[in-house]
Amino acid sequence: MTIGKVLLIGAGPGDLELLTLKAARCLGESDVLLVDDLVNPDIVKFAPHAKVIYVGKRGGCQSTPQNFILRLMRRYAKQGKQVARVKGGDPLLFGRAGEEIAFLQKAGIVTEVVNGITSAISAAASIGVSLTHRHMAHGVVFVTAHLQDGSEPNWDALAKTGCTLAIYMGLHRVTEICKKLQLVLPPNTPAAAISSVTTKQEHRLVSTISDLAKDISLQQLPSPTMILIGEAIGMAGNIVQPENIVQAYTLLG
Amino acid sequence: MTIGKVLLIGAGPGDLELLTLKAARCLGESDVLLVDDLVNPDIVKFAPHAKVIYVGKRGGCQSTPQNFILRLMRRYAKQGKQVARVKGGDPLLFGRAGEEIAFLQKAGIVTEVVNGITSAISAAASIGVSLTHRHMAHGVVFVTAHLQDGSEPNWDALAKTGCTLAIYMGLHRVTEICKKLQLVLPPNTPAAAISSVTTKQEHRLVSTISDLAKDISLQQLPSPTMILIGEAIGMAGNIVQPENIVQAYTLLG
Repeated sequence: MTIGKVLLIGAGPGDLELLTLKAARCLGESDVLLVDDLVNPDIVKFAPHAKVIYVGKRGGCQSTPQNFILRLMRRYAKQGKQVARVKGGDPLLFGRAGEEIAFLQKAGIVTEVVNGITSAISAAASIGVSLTHRHMAHGVVFVTAHLQDGSEPNWDALAKTGCTLAIYMGLHRVTEICKKLQLVLPPNTPAAAISSVTTKQEHRLVSTISDLAKDISLQQLPSPTMILIGEAIGMAGNIVQPENIVQAYTLLG
Repeated sequence: MTIGKVLLIGAGPGDLELLTLKAARCLGESDVLLVDDLVNPDIVKFAPHAKVIYVGKRGGCQSTPQNFILRLMRRYAKQGKQVARVKGGDPLLFGRAGEEIAFLQKAGIVTEVVNGITSAISAAASIGVSLTHRHMAHGVVFVTAHLQDGSEPNWDALAKTGCTLAIYMGLHRVTEICKKLQLVLPPNTPAAAISSVTTKQEHRLVSTISDLAKDISLQQLPSPTMILIGEAIGMAGNIVQPENIVQAYTLLG
């Protein structure tokens, strides 16, 4: 029997119209879908004949242990199936793809990555800012505040890069993060928080690093929330994107 | 007459199958396409009825002045047309979208961003590495070495972030960049260069920051080349993605 393969597929931030053409094709060709928690559940409409397994694990709570997911991928691939491991955003940004690729390569299973739109760029699109406005930022850092090993990003070095900061999973540590950044950056440095990017529940607020934590608390933004910080964020305009929110079945219908 | 609107659309790194479903739809609905130089020219197949204008400006050479592009967008939008400004990668990363959004907002023209896959994540997919392997990097920095105002990224701070570095437009300054990074990072820090990502001309090499410039020179990598630096890049495996290269017309049938 021919051995199958595993595709690590990025589902984008929420709106399924942000899937790539390649992701849509690959989903349709797959036999088994392993779907992460933050993925829009309607994604299964792209794979009407596949067996679907939900393997969510959100924040700290380990609903499906990673080792179990690894073994599931290996088992189905060894049965000759094409397995689609579907992750929110892009698989290569905060998606534990590094460990999964290493495990699968060791098992002799062909692995391919199908990139997706990551929520930082969709959040920026939603408030109408470039992440790298050339008069204001040399680049952008995508960083997570949620580190499994208890260590912490070097906020001092990050603030000194002159780059826009896009902080994933920072909601619950926003007070502390903004305090540390103010050791380097002025308190009126523009900041924004965008929750549930590209979904019907999307909520945006634009503030400064001195007020961001308070504003997030007042407006009770839920997880997941993307935090953007830097001069370039001060260009936030009034771009509103109702067309952004499209259900997969209108596309497929 | 109703005023039109402008869409800033990300065309991805090259392979047109990496367009999002939304980008494909929006291209088909547009009346005028303004197409940048690094965009796969076959993209026009997604907009068979649109007027197409090529507005390439590559590296330092200003074949189409930015002001002329701005006026073109405004003119067609004022005529009631839907204008698609098509950029390589994602419009909000090194695409001058900040200036374009500000100009169009001032002119009262509705502007929308349609995100695209940026070449850093496709380059990482091509060599099979996560950009944020959780045991090796707290995040990733997307930075450009090509700064219009003659200033330079803070390589010292960037090296100290503990993040993977994804350097856009760094080919011609790779010697200098790697020298500066070695003031902070060990010389055997993994580095990779991937040119013409996701096209038939794609070429990949994996090296270290001490040898990268020499290896690029030996293999004569052409522009555009993405440079990836950091411990996580050391996981580069043997992922090969022939399926990655798909012509748009096979999709459109």
